[in-house]
Amino acid sequence: MITSTQNPRIKHLLQLQQKSSLRKEEGLFVVEGRREVEHCLEAGFKIRTAFVCEEIGDADPPHSSLKVGEIERVSPNVYERIAYRGGTEGIVALVEARQTSLSDLQLSASPLIVVLESVEKPGNLGAVLRSADAAGADAVVVCDPLTDLYNPNLIRSSIGALFTVPCVACSTEECIAFFREKGIRVLTAQLQDSRLYYDTPMTGPTAIVMGTEATGLTDQWRQAADAHIRIPMLGRLDSLNVSVSAAILLFEAVRQRQAQNKGK
Amino acid sequence: MITSTQNPRIKHLLQLQQKSSLRKEEGLFVVEGRREVEHCLEAGFKIRTAFVCEEIGDADPPHSSLKVGEIERVSPNVYERIAYRGGTEGIVALVEARQTSLSDLQLSASPLIVVLESVEKPGNLGAVLRSADAAGADAVVVCDPLTDLYNPNLIRSSIGALFTVPCVACSTEECIAFFREKGIRVLTAQLQDSRLYYDTPMTGPTAIVMGTEATGLTDQWRQAADAHIRIPMLGRLDSLNVSVSAAILLFEAVRQRQAQNKGK
Repeated sequence: MITSTQNPRIKHLLQLQQKSSLRKEEGLFVVEGRREVEHCLEAGFKIRTAFVCEEIGDADPPHSSLKVGEIERVSPNVYERIAYRGGTEGIVALVEARQTSLSDLQLSASPLIVVLESVEKPGNLGAVLRSADAAGADAVVVCDPLTDLYNPNLIRSSIGALFTVPCVACSTEECIAFFREKGIRVLTAQLQDSRLYYDTPMTGPTAIVMGTEATGLTDQWRQAADAHIRIPMLGRLDSLNVSVSAAILLFEAVRQRQAQNKGK
Repeated sequence: MITSTQNPRIKHLLQLQQKSSLRKEEGLFVVEGRREVEHCLEAGFKIRTAFVCEEIGDADPPHSSLKVGEIERVSPNVYERIAYRGGTEGIVALVEARQTSLSDLQLSASPLIVVLESVEKPGNLGAVLRSADAAGADAVVVCDPLTDLYNPNLIRSSIGALFTVPCVACSTEECIAFFREKGIRVLTAQLQDSRLYYDTPMTGPTAIVMGTEATGLTDQWRQAADAHIRIPMLGRLDSLNVSVSAAILLFEAVRQRQAQNKGK
């Protein structure tokens, strides 16, 4: 059992949580929590090491139902150091990263995809992934991301949706070309020259593209759009959180699709 | 100019930011940021003291366009201590609290109200207020709140919507009685015995009631409901963030109401 926070493997784990560059270099990232680790395994990720603390969490050992590689037992003081959520679950896993590209996506007959231009806050992407999971979206695409997809805040705020919804990072050019090739309509969320989102059909293959909260949508996407859509702003403030906007638009697509199915 | 972070007025300000009990006792709270202070003034709150730092922020003195009471100039080091957002705006205000009760609400012809049962995270209530503003909701009601409504995280995450949307704290009993009296239909968000939210009319006077993420809705609200509604969960995970759920439901009401107006 590892009992010191100065243990080199623990120090390595902490560094991976903090440094995007190290995650990239080593192709490893860190996942905390039993449910998150389960989703990660189900998605086919390979867990290199599970750091478990049997003194913490439920009666069952946290790894008992999980097929993980090596298991390292750690003491409660070490666990508290490596776990963000204050040690309620007893498992932190070191996982091998895996790149998903657009061509890897297995799309449904009428895909529903969310595109985020860059990502300002990893927590926002996590929240979008969570909504994308609930709406049964095919994928979330991040164009020109500034951080990697394995940021701990992202994984945490996605409550595991990073592993249940395919998430691709690519360039804007690649993404636009992919949508053209696949016949996916591009709807950009923007205030100017736009129509109300609920007056816009979303039953066919649809990509919903959101700019950043700070700078809005780039011209490249505006010009690539098949339609510009907006959420009406009926109050005094002039903006919604990007993850809230994404959820409103995604669930309008869900509503339209279910109404169409009912009509059939 | 105040140049020391040990100044008693600065210490008092910091304590008000940290302690809910002190805010309650003194009937004071703290608002940061130029836009937030503007919304606060427009809503009729009385600003007791504006702490401004002219070295920070835009060229204009931050308080130049604001009608505030006393102005205290502070040095950049003091400002950095009292401001959370790292000093981009140059104004932190000490504001007099004001209680809004259900009978104070000025409701529209067909009110749209969000009710949250308790509040686990002040940031979630802030996010709900932001969405409620965008959807043009009449009010947000918090039943049996565990914190006060002037928590700094709440104000921050609402980006000022705490001042643009009437927000009431009251007991569940009072709230149910109010809705009965006013003929407002109660729709509770819950998975059991529910129909899809978009198959539920929301054009009449409507209150949307959300339980907590941890424990869901209480029996008291379930029993008071005119209809139970659910957002379909089409993915692998089983929950949405409460502020995201609120936004999806609010904007469905917006959609239905605008469709009805168009039909007229």
